[in-house]
Amino acid sequence: MQNRARIVRLFRYRNVARKLKALRYIRVFSENLADAVGVTSAQVRKDFSLFSISGNRRGGYNVEEVIKQIEMVLGKGKLQKVILVGFGNIGRALLRYPGFEKDGIKIAAAFDIDPAKVNRESHIPVLPLSEMGNYVENNSIQIGIITVPDYAAQQVFELMKSAGIKGILNFAPICLQESEECIVNNINLETELESIIYYVKTRKKRKPKQ
Amino acid sequence: MQNRARIVRLFRYRNVARKLKALRYIRVFSENLADAVGVTSAQVRKDFSLFSISGNRRGGYNVEEVIKQIEMVLGKGKLQKVILVGFGNIGRALLRYPGFEKDGIKIAAAFDIDPAKVNRESHIPVLPLSEMGNYVENNSIQIGIITVPDYAAQQVFELMKSAGIKGILNFAPICLQESEECIVNNINLETELESIIYYVKTRKKRKPKQ
Repeated sequence: MQNRARIVRLFRYRNVARKLKALRYIRVFSENLADAVGVTSAQVRKDFSLFSISGNRRGGYNVEEVIKQIEMVLGKGKLQKVILVGFGNIGRALLRYPGFEKDGIKIAAAFDIDPAKVNRESHIPVLPLSEMGNYVENNSIQIGIITVPDYAAQQVFELMKSAGIKGILNFAPICLQESEECIVNNINLETELESIIYYVKTRKKRKPKQ
Repeated sequence: MQNRARIVRLFRYRNVARKLKALRYIRVFSENLADAVGVTSAQVRKDFSLFSISGNRRGGYNVEEVIKQIEMVLGKGKLQKVILVGFGNIGRALLRYPGFEKDGIKIAAAFDIDPAKVNRESHIPVLPLSEMGNYVENNSIQIGIITVPDYAAQQVFELMKSAGIKGILNFAPICLQESEECIVNNINLETELESIIYYVKTRKKRKPKQ
């Protein structure tokens, strides 16, 4: 888990560095990156040194170098194709989400069990779930997104694993369990929102208005 | 952070227990909860004991009791109203997302800066951003969701804080910084997907096919 958190931070540093580059910044200090990402500057320096990203306290880091070196660590290559299963509201929104392509990710096709949703002519085709296995194999897809309702998630998960999917971003509100063969990142929208509500409530209790 | 992770786990235990209850389960063992949530059973028992949720190794936990006691800890009360800012693809999907209401969360109104998106007659009204401050105050809203593009996020964030919002779930792909007055949960969809891709890639490198 610790390691995963570090990788997520690297992505965040890179995102910040890219924005700074767009603003024509030449150098950035660990303190700036720390502020932007919400960690301590010591954390930034530790993360960077672990991945041999060099700079110095006085002169900071070269923005371009930071981007290049992080991309080398994270791997920046050809377009990564992913599939999406579940063409409901969230699925539809993700298909239209411009952020992915910017980062070299392309949703190549969506799948749904409902024949009424199938649309082969669409810019991103929506295909019957029964075709997923062949599609994944023929297109060497390894990554999938699950946006089906909770009751369908486990079954879709099994189907995707047998099709050869190795990594899944799951939005169905149930915790799918990762294994050696397939890693899973579960995002439960309700829980994310509920935990914010919980924290706001308990914070207020701790600090009553005077 | 450790503490936050624990709260998220509590929500997950509760979700599993609710599903078991629907299946007419009477009791559940820490091992079952551990499997469903993807942690160790020792972790489940530790979390439960920290919040004085009682059971025993032999007989397990009573499902109904688990739900009741976790709800007591997390607070289950009246409907929690939240607002959403940014009526784009993701915002629209969240407005239609049925999961929130099930958990006692209601998106009361959405706001957008684009006059063409305003719709006061809608089931959930879409209002001009300029009305957000008054709306939040008049309806005592404390929680907000941000689904605007990255370049607009910081400004919307400031507006929401001055309006009195105390907790934010942010989907804009920039890291908004929480403070004493307002806590933030940043969900960066690109980064979540990119880190899965990264892990699948590096896993393969570590374990080449033989």
